[in-house]
Order: sequence, then C-alpha cells, then structure tokens
Amino acid sequence: MNYKFNIIDDKSLECKIVEFSNTNFKLDSDYILNNFKIAFKSFGTLNKKKNNVILVCHALTGDQYVTGYNPVTRREGWWSRMVGPNKPIDTNKFFVICSNVIGGCSGSTGPKEIDVNTNSPFGGKFPSITINDIVNAQNYLLESLSIKKLFAVIGGSMGAMQAIQWSLNYPDKIKNIIHIAGALKHSSQNIAFHEVGRQAIMNDNNWNKGSYNENGKRPETGLAVARMIAHITYLSENAMHRKFGRKLQSRDIISFGFDADFQVESYLRYQGRSFVERFDANSYLYLTRAMDYFDIVDKFSKAIEFPAIPNKHINYLVISFTSDWLFPTIENKEIVKKLNYFNRNVSFTEIETDKGHDSFLLDELELDFTINGFLESNYRKLESHD
Amino acid sequence: MNYKFNIIDDKSLECKIVEFSNTNFKLDSDYILNNFKIAFKSFGTLNKKKNNVILVCHALTGDQYVTGYNPVTRREGWWSRMVGPNKPIDTNKFFVICSNVIGGCSGSTGPKEIDVNTNSPFGGKFPSITINDIVNAQNYLLESLSIKKLFAVIGGSMGAMQAIQWSLNYPDKIKNIIHIAGALKHSSQNIAFHEVGRQAIMNDNNWNKGSYNENGKRPETGLAVARMIAHITYLSENAMHRKFGRKLQSRDIISFGFDADFQVESYLRYQGRSFVERFDANSYLYLTRAMDYFDIVDKFSKAIEFPAIPNKHINYLVISFTSDWLFPTIENKEIVKKLNYFNRNVSFTEIETDKGHDSFLLDELELDFTINGFLESNYRKLESHD
Repeated sequence: MNYKFNIIDDKSLECKIVEFSNTNFKLDSDYILNNFKIAFKSFGTLNKKKNNVILVCHALTGDQYVTGYNPVTRREGWWSRMVGPNKPIDTNKFFVICSNVIGGCSGSTGPKEIDVNTNSPFGGKFPSITINDIVNAQNYLLESLSIKKLFAVIGGSMGAMQAIQWSLNYPDKIKNIIHIAGALKHSSQNIAFHEVGRQAIMNDNNWNKGSYNENGKRPETGLAVARMIAHITYLSENAMHRKFGRKLQSRDIISFGFDADFQVESYLRYQGRSFVERFDANSYLYLTRAMDYFDIVDKFSKAIEFPAIPNKHINYLVISFTSDWLFPTIENKEIVKKLNYFNRNVSFTEIETDKGHDSFLLDELELDFTINGFLESNYRKLESHD
Repeated sequence: MNYKFNIIDDKSLECKIVEFSNTNFKLDSDYILNNFKIAFKSFGTLNKKKNNVILVCHALTGDQYVTGYNPVTRREGWWSRMVGPNKPIDTNKFFVICSNVIGGCSGSTGPKEIDVNTNSPFGGKFPSITINDIVNAQNYLLESLSIKKLFAVIGGSMGAMQAIQWSLNYPDKIKNIIHIAGALKHSSQNIAFHEVGRQAIMNDNNWNKGSYNENGKRPETGLAVARMIAHITYLSENAMHRKFGRKLQSRDIISFGFDADFQVESYLRYQGRSFVERFDANSYLYLTRAMDYFDIVDKFSKAIEFPAIPNKHINYLVISFTSDWLFPTIENKEIVKKLNYFNRNVSFTEIETDKGHDSFLLDELELDFTINGFLESNYRKLESHD
C-alpha cells in the first residue's frame, strides 16, 4: 500500500475523519480518486484479539451516527435502539464501526466536498459511485485502523447491498454477514421510483447541473418531492392506513383547496421539509444511482459455486419483512436459496409486520432477538474455538 | 329547470359542447356555477324508446374521445378497443355518450377555460370539484339531450367513482352499473401519491399559483414528474419486470451518469413528456383532489340499507384485477359484500392479470367478455319485458 492517511478529530461533526492521499483508487467508472476522506464513528472497545469488530453499513440517507448523539440532526442516531451497551448489537462486547459512504454528505468525500484539484465543490462533476466503490473505500478505512478481520458486517437496504458486496470483495476478512431487506439486484420498479425522484431534483431550477453549492440556492423543493416519493415506498399500505387512514389534519371539514387536508399529506410534507435540512441533493442523485446500478446476481452465484477466494466459512443471516414491497421476501430468498443449494451456513427469517421496508429501523422485537441471537451464538463459537 | 343551454359543434375539438347559463349550480364547496360548458361525444344511435343509452365515465386523465379519432392526441380514443360497432360495448346497439368532466381540460369548464366573470382563465381560482359535482354536471348534460334513462353507466378508476356516485344521486335514472377498479373511498396511500404529484406541480416555478396561462410558461417539468409517479402506480411490479427488467437503453454498458441508462427510465421520461402536451397541470391538481375527497362509504351503506330513492332495480357489475395495487380487489369487494348482504343484483369478477391498475384500458379478453355478457343479457331482459 503506497497511499498515505491522516486521522483527524472533526469537532463540528463530532466524529473522526481519515484523510487518504496518493491512493490511486480506481472507481468502477475508471475515475481515479487520489484523495478522499472517510468520516466514521466507533462504539465499544477493540479487544486484544481484534476479533470483535462489527461494521454497520448505513442505508441511502443514513450516516455514521448509528447510535448516540447526532450533532447534525440533534437527535439520537438512526439505529440507537439496536446498537449500544446491552442492546442487540452490544457495544459492551463488540467494537462497532460505522462510516459515511463515499458519495454521501456527512463528512466523507462526496459531491458537496471540495475537489482539491479545482478548489471548489465537486457538485455534478463528482464521479459516479457504485456499491462496489463504497465497499472498497470502507476497506481503506479498516486498513487505516489496522483492522484485518471483521466479526460481522451488518446492513439493511442499501446497507444490505454493502454487506453482501463485502462477501464478494473481501470474503477472507469476514466471518458473519447480516443482510436485512436487500436484494442481489435493484428491481425495475425501484429504479423507476428513484428515477422520478432524480427528475424532481434535476428539474428544480436551483439544481443548476449540480453546481448549486456555488450560488447558494439549493434544489430544496425538488429534493423534498424526491423524499416524499421515497417515503411512501418505505411504508406499507396497511401501515399508512393504520396510521393515517383518511383522518383530517386539524380541521373538522375539508378545505376544498390544496392545503394539507389529510394527515398523511402533512406528514409527507414534513418528511420532505426536514430531509432537505440534513441531506445534500447531489448525494441523493449519486447514491440512488449506485443502488440502481447494483446487480450482483451473476457474481454472487459464481462466488458461491466456484469461490476464487475461500468463502465457505461465512455465516449468513438473511432477514426480510412481510410488508416490504421495495425489497420483498422473494428477493431476499434468492440469496438464501443459492446458499442452501451449495450447502452454506445460512439462517433466514421473514418477520411478520405491517411496517414495510422501514421495519429494519423501527421497533421490531423479533428483529432485535434475531440479530442478537445470531451474533451471540457465533461469537461464543468463535471464542470457544480460539 | 330555469337554466338555459345551447348546443354547439366545436370544429377544432371535433365534438359537441353544451353551454349552460343561469344554472345556479351549487358545488359541494358552496361555490355557485352560473355558467359552464360540457364537451361530449356520442356514438351509435338513440333508439325510439330511448332505452339504449350508455354513459361512459372517463378516468383521471381521460376525455370525451372514448373511441374513434382524438384530434388532440391524433390517436385512437382511449377505449377504442372496447367501444364501437361489434365491440364489447356495441355501438350498433347502444347509444354511447362520453363527456369531459368539469374540472377537466378537454373542452368542459375547467381551470384553463375563461371565467366569464373576469374574462381571464380560472387558473388557481377555479372552484374545488368533487366526484359528486362531476356527476351532477353530467346530469345537466343528459337533461339538455332529453335523456331521462340510462341503460348503463360504466367507468374504471375515477370513472368507477362516477358510476357508483350515479347510483347514489340518480338511482331512478339508471338500470345497470359497471364499476371497474374503483373503491368507495380513496385510500391513504393513494392520497399520498397524489399529494406528491401535486407538490411537484405546485413547486414548479412556472406554476405561479395556477396563473401560468397568463404568462405563457407552463409548469411542464412538475406535471411530467407527477405523471411519472402516477404511471408507476398504474403498472404492477411484475409487469414492469416483464417489460423492462434491468434492460439497458440503446447502450451496451451503463453510462455512470444520470442519463436514462435503463429502459424503464426512458419509458417514464417519455410518459412524462408526452403527457404535458395533452394535459393541463391545474386540471391535474383539481381532479386528483376530487379523487382524494371521494369517500361514500357511509352514504353507500345507507342508500343500500334504507334507500331514500328506490335503487333495488339496479344491476351492478364490479370488476377488479389481481395485480391492481391502487384499487385492489379487497376495496372493490366492499361494494359487492354490501350489495350481497342486502340481497341486491350484483356480479363480481376478479380478473387475473399482471398488468396492474391500467388493465382496464389494456388488452384483456376476459374484461371484454365480462362487460359484453353483462350488457347483452341485461339488454335482452329489458327488451323482452318491454
């Protein structure tokens, strides 16, 4: 490894940032990244054997603040209910790392960061990013921390894509994978929803081909609409019906106008508005595109049938939710089927819930027990073998 | 009836328009329409008994050009495969009327028409419209044509809402109702999708609170995004997968950019672009709102249990499609259950198809036979009774 790196404490982001240089990091698009940054947080303590590391991969709009305080949103981290002392992913036992993906907007190199070659923000000139690139960048981070083995890689949605990509790129480094509500490829309908969101952003007059950070006006209305579309897809029809039905918003009667008459309208508008405060529109474009490009059906089959690097030691846990229509059970099962067919270690659970795709972020006791049980039993085995 | 009317031939729209005045027509919003126009087309011949009239109600983005040539789109009408000589709705036998809904943009009074009180287009000052208002306006049309009885009212989607509303408002005028892919109320998820579409339009800088017709710039990008969102919901995931999968658009490899790499993206962009050529953004706002406001659950129950005006003579045919997730079978069945419970004449068919909500417009042989069989058998009974 010829690259250099420098780990700094970022006071305003309340996290660490590794600045890599001289990387000659070739992306899938053939673009060469010679300098990039990865912002990350860690929780718990690395043990002496360095065998208790868990990498948590965040979803499309997530960040490194998996638990604890998030200084940007001023709220608890996005998986605080799952990660922490005595929680299902127990930081009394495990050393948990979560990093912002490249292409993101929470401290890692992405379209809103300064391109050192031009001294202005990348904007729309940021190179195209794939899930493969994201995982390879995470590997730089682990190298810089001298971590050679991961006890587990865990992720839901776009995080699940990263977890399964890890099993292809660095199988010799990982022991366990927890893949929640993902798929081996992004479906036609999912690409369609993403495309409409992107059109909403790129049609916003303020988008300015991605150079909005230079003129100060951000494509907020476009990004809000994109978020609203996506948010509908994260819920289930039943959950929406249960939560909102046709209930009116602080009115006894309908207004006969275009204000938010129904609670579901106010809720969506709020989701849109609050999202633009914390997320960068260009990052939304690049990361949805990374998900659209994701298709490892053939590579995964080949890796299981004829592993180039040994991967038979990996234990997989695949979890899906009955009401998830973005990454339905049938798509998650493709992974399970393939693994079972070739006699690999795979556990599978379909959790019954009406909360839709977002279930992995929400209060689902069965999810907690399933993840905790899988981690604890495999960690016990590891300790007794060592 | 104190109102006046005048029936004119519109050369450019190639249809008839009834101009009503002195109507004192009170909308649900309490707004009084004193002048309004209804554009309509008719097909076939009214028989001497005047008992062969079928009213076809169009869906959200439909128009009066149910069959034959549409001079606006320069294509065949939207239900040409269903309506015509020797077709399932046979114009050799039936006199078919289809009118543009009020609030629409194809010749009937709607936001793009001139408000005679101000001599400029209504725009965002057009009054709020409900399905009830739409049906009451259609009744004016039938009165102006001296048609006192309808053999059948037929509609899919928003057209189904009108058909079932007809059974509430004018049960004594109708003998048969064909309700395809509708519901007694618009669901929370459907309101949510409509709301995002409206936000896309109203956030378009060109929308200008609905007064764009005065400055010449139309909110085309917002309307295109709204159409793209809606279009996804009209299809099924399986149909999309079958039609597009992850197939690339005239490229061997992905572009690593934001052009339309996937065929599904090009298809949606085309749907958006072509829609703005034929549809008015304000009409889209008003008519989606009319659908959102639709909720006749209580009124329908009451009308079936304790009819204020006799309605026991009405024959209902309710049709749903297995892959329709906008107006799923379960919602259509609510109508059937209620009717069966009170011993009414109702037929029900769930058609197995993967074409989604749009199935009612597409090539579905079972739909053709079901509609034709229902109409023919009921028409035979009518003739033999007379």
